[in-house]
Amino acid sequence: MTTANFADQLIDEMKRKKSRLIVGLDPSQEHAPASLGGEVVATLGLGTREIGVARQWAMREFCERIIAATEDIAVGYKVQLAYFERYGSAGMHVLERLLLEHEPKLFILDGKRGDIGATSKAYADAYFYDKGTDDQSPLLCDAVTLNGYLGKDALEPFFPFLAQNKGAFVLAKTSNPSSGDLQDQEIDGEPVYARMARLVNEWGADFVGDHGYSSLGLVVGATYPEAARRVRQLAPKSLILVPGIGVQGGRPQDADAFAGEDGCGAVFNFSRSIIYAYKYGPFADEHDEDKFETAARVAAEHYRVSLNEALGEP
Amino acid sequence: MTTANFADQLIDEMKRKKSRLIVGLDPSQEHAPASLGGEVVATLGLGTREIGVARQWAMREFCERIIAATEDIAVGYKVQLAYFERYGSAGMHVLERLLLEHEPKLFILDGKRGDIGATSKAYADAYFYDKGTDDQSPLLCDAVTLNGYLGKDALEPFFPFLAQNKGAFVLAKTSNPSSGDLQDQEIDGEPVYARMARLVNEWGADFVGDHGYSSLGLVVGATYPEAARRVRQLAPKSLILVPGIGVQGGRPQDADAFAGEDGCGAVFNFSRSIIYAYKYGPFADEHDEDKFETAARVAAEHYRVSLNEALGEP
Repeated sequence: MTTANFADQLIDEMKRKKSRLIVGLDPSQEHAPASLGGEVVATLGLGTREIGVARQWAMREFCERIIAATEDIAVGYKVQLAYFERYGSAGMHVLERLLLEHEPKLFILDGKRGDIGATSKAYADAYFYDKGTDDQSPLLCDAVTLNGYLGKDALEPFFPFLAQNKGAFVLAKTSNPSSGDLQDQEIDGEPVYARMARLVNEWGADFVGDHGYSSLGLVVGATYPEAARRVRQLAPKSLILVPGIGVQGGRPQDADAFAGEDGCGAVFNFSRSIIYAYKYGPFADEHDEDKFETAARVAAEHYRVSLNEALGEP
Repeated sequence: MTTANFADQLIDEMKRKKSRLIVGLDPSQEHAPASLGGEVVATLGLGTREIGVARQWAMREFCERIIAATEDIAVGYKVQLAYFERYGSAGMHVLERLLLEHEPKLFILDGKRGDIGATSKAYADAYFYDKGTDDQSPLLCDAVTLNGYLGKDALEPFFPFLAQNKGAFVLAKTSNPSSGDLQDQEIDGEPVYARMARLVNEWGADFVGDHGYSSLGLVVGATYPEAARRVRQLAPKSLILVPGIGVQGGRPQDADAFAGEDGCGAVFNFSRSIIYAYKYGPFADEHDEDKFETAARVAAEHYRVSLNEALGEP
């Protein structure tokens, strides 16, 4: 197990793979290829237990095949916890197996957690605690997303782990249409997202690695490049995790707003645009759903190259 | 299964039990009574799998005994998801069993979730989807806590469920010391928490029940009664979930700031002050840890009466 600063790990992987691509694993039942069993078993009159087992198999198989199709292109995987929690312990068990079997890869668990200190400690342990054998977390990963609405003491339980080899990305400006309801409102002449970025940059100063970026980073949606320019100025040392290119409307051409002067300050997450490329986006017509991995690989390579065209190789 | 508006269900239960008490189930390994196996098995040299099973048993037994000791006093239970997620699928399985076996009771899952629309839909389904047999959520509950940092479209997937019999509480002013980092900052002359309360009151107008309160409520910490007075004015129809009396420093004497004119607009959550009453607070000296249920019951009754003394019976 590596003990390098998380930001350094991520940037080294970017340079090695000439990629800024994170692939988002959102195994939604609604979008899953029918060939993987989702719709098939539902029409077979199977019992609840058999359907549950078939669904577990389909979720895991889907994620495994997406990983196999993209592992030389993606610098890491962002797992959306909601899609696993949707199926309770059965879903969480699938996630545990994925994390365990792909342990050397970088995994970001996207849960946007944030709670009071005592509870936040339980979350930090849930994702990062790796001491002992009996108490090691079954959801061990490399980084998480956090919501900073509760302030510094909600993030602090994660800091001891950031000082080692773990990372966290705090929401600044999210990619969704109504993110402005609160995030664009102004406090002393600057929007809430800018205030958040300023605070996180300050709190993250202790976790800056050799490449000059902190393992306490930010989330800024690709749909708001102007916000990103402002964040980049206020938080020059924050790594930015950028969701929202593709189905949500963000464009690779705007990537420079996020990446920083050296072009290494941002990674870009693609979920639906890659994993469901067989049904969404420019490659949907070329691939049947039973070739979903091929579509995912083509889309992943396309976006890797598009980002490098916009920013140069990392 | 009842189909009454959630706010009405909760207030009817308050009136029936003459109580405003919510008991918080935070089965932390750190605080768990050693008599329940946590420390005991750890010293027996058991294998990882046996310790995992023993821990599951201890978590479940602890929650079951707390529920049995308080079920005639508490109007509902608030489950802190972090403490179950800490043990991955094993922890979630304990929670599923608890929810299933106590189904007529009111359960609030406290996860403070908030995500973009597509993901938020998966969370809403995770807690509220009860159609069919194969797709019913294993974490089915009555209400959740939500984080509104992402704005309205992050909450909207929950609205169809609120229009039926489910509830949600959106964070306004949280009980932790650094909640002011963002929540106290002013937007157009009003603090962020007040802006959030105003928005939630507006969004919740469609879910107001016969008692005049909305099933889209707010969270305001007991440690900030002045904030509560402001919230109560701006959001007169919001039910308020109030954590923070007891170990965190909030006082029953300030309860009127939260409860509204009819005294029925707030429920008060107690976690550590009740479930670990054998080691924290005014009843710690009277009870050994193997009497933790007795201590919990004494503390629960004490706080129920204290709140009624401050507010009158609901």
